[in-house]
Amino acid sequence: MKTLKIPEAAIMRLSVYSRYLSQLDRRGVVTVSSNDIAEGVGVSPAQVRKDLAYFGEFGTRGVGYNVKDLHRHIMKILGLNYQWPVIIVGAGNLGTALCMYAGFRERGFNIVGIFDNDPNKIGHRLNNVEVYPMSRLKEVVEEEDVKIGIIAVPADHAQEVSNLLVEAGVKAILNFAPKVLNVPAEVELRNVDLSVNLEILTFNLSYRRKYY
Amino acid sequence: MKTLKIPEAAIMRLSVYSRYLSQLDRRGVVTVSSNDIAEGVGVSPAQVRKDLAYFGEFGTRGVGYNVKDLHRHIMKILGLNYQWPVIIVGAGNLGTALCMYAGFRERGFNIVGIFDNDPNKIGHRLNNVEVYPMSRLKEVVEEEDVKIGIIAVPADHAQEVSNLLVEAGVKAILNFAPKVLNVPAEVELRNVDLSVNLEILTFNLSYRRKYY
Repeated sequence: MKTLKIPEAAIMRLSVYSRYLSQLDRRGVVTVSSNDIAEGVGVSPAQVRKDLAYFGEFGTRGVGYNVKDLHRHIMKILGLNYQWPVIIVGAGNLGTALCMYAGFRERGFNIVGIFDNDPNKIGHRLNNVEVYPMSRLKEVVEEEDVKIGIIAVPADHAQEVSNLLVEAGVKAILNFAPKVLNVPAEVELRNVDLSVNLEILTFNLSYRRKYY
Repeated sequence: MKTLKIPEAAIMRLSVYSRYLSQLDRRGVVTVSSNDIAEGVGVSPAQVRKDLAYFGEFGTRGVGYNVKDLHRHIMKILGLNYQWPVIIVGAGNLGTALCMYAGFRERGFNIVGIFDNDPNKIGHRLNNVEVYPMSRLKEVVEEEDVKIGIIAVPADHAQEVSNLLVEAGVKAILNFAPKVLNVPAEVELRNVDLSVNLEILTFNLSYRRKYY
């Protein structure tokens, strides 16, 4: 396993900061302090400074950060100074919902195809994205230079789809299937477990309320 | 804003530990060390001990933790020693996908209804869950003692739906709409932004690979 020097939670916060900076920029704000960012997104100022410090010195002491520069810099750190072509495998409810999800495009993710084996779905368009047969996976990945694939198929097909994505040349997989997948070490894999979000709510409803 | 003494990342890890302990239990493992848990889930042993220490002393020094006891204890901390009735608002692709999502039921979340305004959807069943009209929201929340509502409607209806959920008596909201919602301070709100998951992948594909 490789050493992860920057905690994933810090990357998630960078993502939140970048959205806040983008809002400030749209409102015409030119400079911002770490205290402003902290207040705007609900973390401590020390946390903001620590997260930004992982990636070098940005601000001017006593003046703060230039909003546009900091936003651009964070987007670059996140790899979002670039339009990423993405494919989805599985044109069921989840795959369709992800294909329609406006949040992806806003952040520079461009869904270039959705793949399924159902002949009734193939050739249709979802949100202007074509549904392709699985047999065209490799061809589309190569033509569109796709590095990221999203798995939105049932659990018992997820490993098979993951293998096909890796063979086709995908370098990062976002897996929505509730299934542990094996991928080669050089492929980035992230599992999305939607129930964790509900568990944070039930923790807050039960434990936190009882003990604080 | 209330002070959160236990970081959210620790709650997410507890959720991961509990899944791992449940696997061990099914395999008949009786005791486990913090090192075993750490290795099993891919965090440091010190992190495991720190996370568990938030909630008191569990293990026996030199012996480790009893798998069943620790699992039961963590589930209780997470509020999962209990079946939570949950409703979904929005029977579009996302709402339908969430309604079908097996991961919720496995963790004790029981979808008791899905609400929509489309007359063509009302009365149908999705995964044995009835689609109700919005007019029956308050009645179902009261009858089923629902504390948690999931918003899966387009962004421009999300605040209206959130207000209706709060009025109906829901205490926690999981919001999938890409929209900042206002809720009373006593209501727990969690926004799910699916693109953050892709951003962690692009960070790993671009920054991490370049600099480590």
